[in-house]
Amino acid sequence: MSERKQLIMVPGPTNVPDRVMQAMLKPIINHRGPEFHALHESIRENLKYVFQTKGDVFALTASGTGGVECAVNNAVSLGDKVVAPVFGIFSERLKEKIVRRGGNAVNVPLKLGEGATVEQIAQAVDKEKDVKAIAVLYNETSTGVTVRDLPKIGEIARKKDILFIVDAVSILGGDYLPMDEWGVDICITGSQKCLACPPGLAMVSVSEGAWKVIEETARPYYFDLVQFREFSEKKEIPQTPALSIFYALDEALKMVREEGIENRIKRHATCAKAFYAALKALKLTPFPNEKFLSNTVIAINVPTGVDNAKIIEIMREKYGVVIAGGMGELKKSILRIGCMGIISEAETLLTINALENALMEVNYPIKMGAGVEAAREIFRS
Amino acid sequence: MSERKQLIMVPGPTNVPDRVMQAMLKPIINHRGPEFHALHESIRENLKYVFQTKGDVFALTASGTGGVECAVNNAVSLGDKVVAPVFGIFSERLKEKIVRRGGNAVNVPLKLGEGATVEQIAQAVDKEKDVKAIAVLYNETSTGVTVRDLPKIGEIARKKDILFIVDAVSILGGDYLPMDEWGVDICITGSQKCLACPPGLAMVSVSEGAWKVIEETARPYYFDLVQFREFSEKKEIPQTPALSIFYALDEALKMVREEGIENRIKRHATCAKAFYAALKALKLTPFPNEKFLSNTVIAINVPTGVDNAKIIEIMREKYGVVIAGGMGELKKSILRIGCMGIISEAETLLTINALENALMEVNYPIKMGAGVEAAREIFRS
Repeated sequence: MSERKQLIMVPGPTNVPDRVMQAMLKPIINHRGPEFHALHESIRENLKYVFQTKGDVFALTASGTGGVECAVNNAVSLGDKVVAPVFGIFSERLKEKIVRRGGNAVNVPLKLGEGATVEQIAQAVDKEKDVKAIAVLYNETSTGVTVRDLPKIGEIARKKDILFIVDAVSILGGDYLPMDEWGVDICITGSQKCLACPPGLAMVSVSEGAWKVIEETARPYYFDLVQFREFSEKKEIPQTPALSIFYALDEALKMVREEGIENRIKRHATCAKAFYAALKALKLTPFPNEKFLSNTVIAINVPTGVDNAKIIEIMREKYGVVIAGGMGELKKSILRIGCMGIISEAETLLTINALENALMEVNYPIKMGAGVEAAREIFRS
Repeated sequence: MSERKQLIMVPGPTNVPDRVMQAMLKPIINHRGPEFHALHESIRENLKYVFQTKGDVFALTASGTGGVECAVNNAVSLGDKVVAPVFGIFSERLKEKIVRRGGNAVNVPLKLGEGATVEQIAQAVDKEKDVKAIAVLYNETSTGVTVRDLPKIGEIARKKDILFIVDAVSILGGDYLPMDEWGVDICITGSQKCLACPPGLAMVSVSEGAWKVIEETARPYYFDLVQFREFSEKKEIPQTPALSIFYALDEALKMVREEGIENRIKRHATCAKAFYAALKALKLTPFPNEKFLSNTVIAINVPTGVDNAKIIEIMREKYGVVIAGGMGELKKSILRIGCMGIISEAETLLTINALENALMEVNYPIKMGAGVEAAREIFRS
């Protein structure tokens, strides 16, 4: 294997800028003292900016999965009906958390490669009586599908006065999600995706309206959001925080602010557009239905006769570019590229070039350079 | 405030050696790839050594509190009777987790400054019918109390064939806890205490016998130990791990191995002995009953007329030594010093010296230097 630093292009964790990595070396401090209070406030302010909310946002020492569990276990009680469309591994996980919590998860029939639409959600809400919440995975990391009707689904939730939970782990900071404007009540993301921070923290935001439900829920101890709110008032968190990653998150959020959230989202969209243009030029196809193409996870159908494990291995071992295969039943049939965090023209072109080379090396017929050229065209325009 | 680096002497997080801090800068990698597999195995092997177990040990992305919640939620089902003595804030937390889980927590009457004894536990087990588990906090961080009867309590658990859960967050690596020898079924610790690693990870060990109970429990998603076991077989963990802290933990565990667990425990015990000798020489008293003195948390009664907040402030602002006050009802009446991780003669003497200076500055009559001299005597012998 090459001794170069790898370019991490899996759908999270992503490449982390040096200034964010270096922030982890800041000194260990008492998490009940003034230095931590200042750090807490800096993170809180910038999280509100990134989530575009006037509500509360908390950073939890947990992976994104833990953050989603926190949301579910603070909002769903035994027997509660929750519309939770399943269209891949991570939306299945969201549903599973609702079920393990004792909730009644209402599915919406979907195929892999599609995402839920507002019509399907509306139909499910109308058909079922007493739906308490709608829980939607915004971006299905396992299939590269983004649910594009999120604002309209938010309208239904508001109209019917039901809770709207959005799992945005692999997308927040990389695509639009103005939480207050779209009427999202509880929103979750992870540190290691579009925010370009090391993994280890989940962020959970809570709208003013959601607190009433949360207060009435029998909450688990570790993820008790009411405790988080209480400690937040004294600029602390209930447990010992993963301090070094808090420092890194603080730095990563400062970088988001310096760039501006709008610019950051546009950058992700442009790189995604370049990836999709490259696929077309290489006569490859994205896995998802085109209405649901994600700007943060590029899922690609593996051409007939090609072994995706071999492509991944060549890209990794020879070119130092690490991408992922599929998950579950899609394990062998797709390739997945993370278009997240620091993604720019350079990483996009390097990845496409490595993919082209790998395809050549397994004797799959492409026009060498066509993908890179098509991508360059996007960046030029 | 001084610009020197602070000496962190709170009962966790603790000072972290440079080589452990630097390990956090290792590159972000795919957590489903070969580099992570190697890291996973290295950590697993060394965790078994530190826990002194042939069973399984898992590292979770969570604080110690999260680790304890994991243990409880994997082992306790609705209505289960669990003997869980309360003798401070953290044993209260353990009980609260059992209650929130729907368990029936059986208390043992104890005063602050005492820890549970084998007689009390035996009595509770005999009196109650169908006790399913004994859950004991080994070291009460809020009072500086260590439960010294742990091996005998383990014998009762084995004799009665009930589960033995030990919360060892603030003690494992700093005092004796041969898990298999003492018959502990589930044991929890945190990264940021005696292992001298940054905060953010909890470690949970499971004995062979405990698996049967865990498999029959309705487990939460994020903390599902059966999933951890399944992923562990492929050298992975179920969610995205807090990678940078995994690197740090790996390095911290290597340092434990280099030193040897026995030597490390002796080092903690010697430093604790020096602290207690210093207190005596300064005519100060430890808060706990002397049968329960902790080797990792030194709790000191605040002398009449002294404001502990002022002592903490002087030590911190002028001498750069950060110690803690009490928690809850002991907030103003005790001081707490962490004797953990890299603790050695140097940190011990620096802390005692800063304490002596702070006492002088609030006009509390001590013989200046008497504490340091008594401590030095311990290290000389």
